Amino acid sequence: MGTRLGELVERLGGQLMGDPNIEIFGIAPLDGANGSHITFLANPKLRAQAAQTQAAALILSAADSAVIGTKYKGARIITDNPYAYFARGAQFFAALQAIPVKPGIHSSAVVDSDAQVAATAYIGPHVTIEADAVIADQCVIEAGCFIGRGARIGAGTHFFARVTFHAECEIGGSGVIHSGAVIGADGFGFANEAGAWIKIPQTGRVVIGDDVEIGANTTIDRGALADTIIEDGVKLDNQIQIAHNCHIGAHTAMAGCVGVAGSAKIGKYCTFGGAAMVLGHLTIADHVHISSGSMVSRSILEPGQYTGFYPLAKNADWEKSAAIVRNLASMREKIRELEKTINLLAKKEE
Amino acid sequence: MGTRLGELVERLGGQLMGDPNIEIFGIAPLDGANGSHITFLANPKLRAQAAQTQAAALILSAADSAVIGTKYKGARIITDNPYAYFARGAQFFAALQAIPVKPGIHSSAVVDSDAQVAATAYIGPHVTIEADAVIADQCVIEAGCFIGRGARIGAGTHFFARVTFHAECEIGGSGVIHSGAVIGADGFGFANEAGAWIKIPQTGRVVIGDDVEIGANTTIDRGALADTIIEDGVKLDNQIQIAHNCHIGAHTAMAGCVGVAGSAKIGKYCTFGGAAMVLGHLTIADHVHISSGSMVSRSILEPGQYTGFYPLAKNADWEKSAAIVRNLASMREKIRELEKTINLLAKKEE
Amino acid sequence: MGTRLGELVERLGGQLMGDPNIEIFGIAPLDGANGSHITFLANPKLRAQAAQTQAAALILSAADSAVIGTKYKGARIITDNPYAYFARGAQFFAALQAIPVKPGIHSSAVVDSDAQVAATAYIGPHVTIEADAVIADQCVIEAGCFIGRGARIGAGTHFFARVTFHAECEIGGSGVIHSGAVIGADGFGFANEAGAWIKIPQTGRVVIGDDVEIGANTTIDRGALADTIIEDGVKLDNQIQIAHNCHIGAHTAMAGCVGVAGSAKIGKYCTFGGAAMVLGHLTIADHVHISSGSMVSRSILEPGQYTGFYPLAKNADWEKSAAIVRNLASMREKIRELEKTINLLAKKEE
Repeated sequence: MGTRLGELVERLGGQLMGDPNIEIFGIAPLDGANGSHITFLANPKLRAQAAQTQAAALILSAADSAVIGTKYKGARIITDNPYAYFARGAQFFAALQAIPVKPGIHSSAVVDSDAQVAATAYIGPHVTIEADAVIADQCVIEAGCFIGRGARIGAGTHFFARVTFHAECEIGGSGVIHSGAVIGADGFGFANEAGAWIKIPQTGRVVIGDDVEIGANTTIDRGALADTIIEDGVKLDNQIQIAHNCHIGAHTAMAGCVGVAGSAKIGKYCTFGGAAMVLGHLTIADHVHISSGSMVSRSILEPGQYTGFYPLAKNADWEKSAAIVRNLASMREKIRELEKTINLLAKKEE
Repeated sequence: MGTRLGELVERLGGQLMGDPNIEIFGIAPLDGANGSHITFLANPKLRAQAAQTQAAALILSAADSAVIGTKYKGARIITDNPYAYFARGAQFFAALQAIPVKPGIHSSAVVDSDAQVAATAYIGPHVTIEADAVIADQCVIEAGCFIGRGARIGAGTHFFARVTFHAECEIGGSGVIHSGAVIGADGFGFANEAGAWIKIPQTGRVVIGDDVEIGANTTIDRGALADTIIEDGVKLDNQIQIAHNCHIGAHTAMAGCVGVAGSAKIGKYCTFGGAAMVLGHLTIADHVHISSGSMVSRSILEPGQYTGFYPLAKNADWEKSAAIVRNLASMREKIRELEKTINLLAKKEE
Repeated sequence: MGTRLGELVERLGGQLMGDPNIEIFGIAPLDGANGSHITFLANPKLRAQAAQTQAAALILSAADSAVIGTKYKGARIITDNPYAYFARGAQFFAALQAIPVKPGIHSSAVVDSDAQVAATAYIGPHVTIEADAVIADQCVIEAGCFIGRGARIGAGTHFFARVTFHAECEIGGSGVIHSGAVIGADGFGFANEAGAWIKIPQTGRVVIGDDVEIGANTTIDRGALADTIIEDGVKLDNQIQIAHNCHIGAHTAMAGCVGVAGSAKIGKYCTFGGAAMVLGHLTIADHVHISSGSMVSRSILEPGQYTGFYPLAKNADWEKSAAIVRNLASMREKIRELEKTINLLAKKEE
C-alpha cells in the first residue's frame, strides 16, 4: 500500500517541488532506492550520491537542493531537518504496513480482579498483572510481561515481550519498553556491620515521564526512600543500569551499556556514548556530552564534550606506554632533577 | 500502623534517651522527617542538619549525641553503628507495611510431579518448576520464574518475577534474586580447531550460600567441570557477569555492571565499584577494594584500594593527553637524550 | 553408563596406545581423574602433573607423549589437538548422560495456528509462538520463550528458558541461545529535532548463521533498514550488546560484557576480551584480537593483538599518575623548554 507524495507533504510538512500525484511505497537509503521509494539527504558528504539516486523523491535542505541543482531529476521535499523528516516518513510507512493489534486480554494472561485494564488495551499471552495496577487506553503489553501491584502504565505505551515492571512504579504515555528490561527492582542499599551487609529496604519507586524509550535488558532501580526519576523524552538503549535515586533530565539519551550509580543527577539534553559510567551522587549539567567508554568521576557543571578512555594501540606498544604510565611520577621526578641541573649550569654560565 | 519507641529498642537494641511511649510510624531522612518519624545521623557532616530535624526520634552515636547536645529536643537512640540501626529499623517498618504473601501454588504454574515444594512456599503465575527441584519452607517464587531439574532453593529465599535458575544449581536460605537474573547458564568454554570453536559441555553447577542477594539481569554461569561458588553474604548488584568456575568469598559486594572472567578466585570482604572488571584465573585477597571502572589484570595479594581508569577531561584536553600517552615511549627517549647532553655539559663544567 | 576406549577412538579419531577394552565412564581434569576416567594434557606446563595422573587414559600430543615417556603407565590417545579432542570427548560423555527431551508442545504453550512447528521439536511450558514462525526439526524451545511473528529457527537449535526472539528474525541450525537473551529488539535510532528525539522505525531483521551460540542476557538489535548479520560459528558470551546493522564475521568469539555500536563491520576469526567496546561504523579486519577492557575507537585493518586500558595501581599511586596524565601537555611543554635551554648551553660551550 502506498501513498501520494502530496498526501505525505500534507501530513509531514515541507515544501514539495514536483508532482504531488507520484505514488510512494516506502522509504529507502540513497543507494537502495528505486522509482517506488522516497529517500533523504542528511549528510552533505553524500550530495554526489543523492544526485545519482533512482528514488522518485528526495528529502533535502534548501542549501543541498541548490548545490545539486538539475543533476537530480525526481521530485523534492525541501525541509530544514531532512533527517527528522526521514524519521517521520519512516514512521508513516511503518504504520501503513503494521499488522493492527486487536484489543483484549489473552486467555492465558493472569490479571488480578482489582487491576484496571482499559478496553482498548492489548494484554498478550502469559502476562501477569497484579492488584491495583492501571493499564491505560491503547497500551500494548506483549507476551510474558509482569506488571506489579499498583503500577501505572500511561496511554499508548508499548511493552515488548518479557518486560518486568515492579509494584507502584509509573510510566507516562507513548512510551516503549523493550524485552527483558526490569523497572523497579530494589536498589543496591546495604549497611555494613562488622563486615556483613544489612539490607536497607528500597521503598521508593521509579517514576518515568512521557515519550520515554527503554532498551532491551536495561535495568532501572527503585529509590531507597525517595523515587528514581526519568523525565519526558529520555531514550535509553540496551543493557543500561540506572541505580536508585538517580534523576535523568528530559530528552537525555544514553547508548548501550551505560551505567549510572546511585543518586546521580543528570541534566536535560545530555548524551552518553556506549559504556560510559557515572559515579554516584554526582551532578551533570544540561547539554553535557560524554564520550563512549569514559568514566565520569566528578560533577560536570559546564556544558561540552568530555572524554576519558585509554587510547587503543598494538599490544606491544600498549605494554610500553602502560609501563610508563604506571611510573609517570618517577618520570616527573627525573624532569625536575634535570631542570635543577640545567638551572645550575645556566647560572654558572652567567 | 506504628510502633512504640520502647518496643523498637527492645527489638533492635541501643540505648533509649526519651519517652518509650512515643509512637513512630516510619523512618525518614533528616530533612524529610516529621513528628511521626524516626531518623538517623550516620555522617558527622550532617550534625547541623540533625540538630534541626523535626523527627520524633534520632538514631546516632554517643559521640555525635554529645556534640549536638541540647540543640535537638526529641528522643534519641544511642548506638555504635547508626547506619546499621537505620537499616534494621527500616526493615522493621517495611515488614509492618508489607502485604503478606499467601502460601500456595498458582493454578497457572507448571510444577513437575517429582518436584518438592514446601506447603509454606508461594509459587506465582506462569512459573515452571522441573522434576526433582526442591523449594524449601517460606520461599517466594514470583511470576514467570524458571527453576530447572534438581535445583535446590533454601528456606525463606525470594525470587522476584522472571528469574531463571538452572538445573542442579543451589542457593541457601534467606536469599534474594531479582528479576531477569540467570543463574547456571553454560559457561563460555570452547576449544579451537582450525579456527572453529568446539563446545566444551559445562557440567558443573552454581552453588550459592546463605544470605546472598543477586541483582536484576545479573548472570552467574555454571562451572565447566567443577562448580562456580558464591559464599555466604555476598551481595551482587544488577547487570553483573560472573563467569564459570569463579569463587567469590563471603560478604564480598559488587556494584552494577561488574564483570569477572572465568576461574577468578576472589576473597572475602572485598568491594568492587561499578563496571570494574577482573580477568580470568586471577586471585584477589580478602579485603581488597577495587574502584569503579578499573580493570584488574593481575592478581592482588595485598589488601587495599586499587584503581585504574583514565581521568575524564574536556574532549579537546583528552585528545592532547591521549596523543601523548600513545607516544610516551618517545617522550621517555627524549628525556634520556636530554639527560646525556646535560651530563656531558656538566662534565665539561668541572 | 561408560564406553570402551576403542569405541571412543573409532568415533573421535586419534591413535590409541593401550588396551581398547578399558571402560571409561567420564572425563576429568588431570588432578581429579581416577581409574574410571579419561583425562587430557593440553598445556605443556602440566606435563609433570600428567605423568602422575591416576586416569585410565590420557589424551595428549605425540611430542608430550615422548617427553613423558614411561612415567605415565595408563593408555594414551595421541592427537594433534588434545584440547579439541577433550571437547569432543566431553560432548560424547555429556550426551551419554543427558536426559532425552521428548518432542511435543506443552499444553500451557500458546502456539499460533499459523506457526509451523516440526513434530520432532520440543516446546516447553509458557512458550509463546506467533503466526508464521517456523520451528524446524529437533529444535528445543524451553519454558517461557517468546518467538515472534514470522521468525525462523533452524534444525536442532536449542533455546534455553526465557529467550526472546523477535518477529522476522532468523537463526540457522545447531545453534544455542541462552536464557534472557533478546534477539531482534529495535535498534537505537532517533533523529534529533530541536533537542527532542524522533524514533526511526527499525524495519531490518537479525539474521544468524549456523552453529552460533549466544550467551545469557545478551542483546542483538534488528537493523534499521538493512539487517544485522551474525555469520556461522560465531560465539557470544553473556551480557553482550550488538547494535543495529552490525556484521560479525564467521567464527569470531566475544567474551562477556562486550559492546559493539551500530553498523560496525567485524571480520572473521576475531576474538574480543571481556568488556571490550567497539564504536560504530568501524571496520575490523579478520584475525584481529582485542584485549579485555579496551575501547576500539578507530578501524583496524591489520591482524594482531590490540590493547587499551589504564593499568591498575594502588589507589594512591593511581591518583599521582592520573594527575600527571591530565597534565601531560604541560609536561611535554616543560621538556621542550628544557631542550631549548640545553641547546643554548651546548651552543655556548662550542
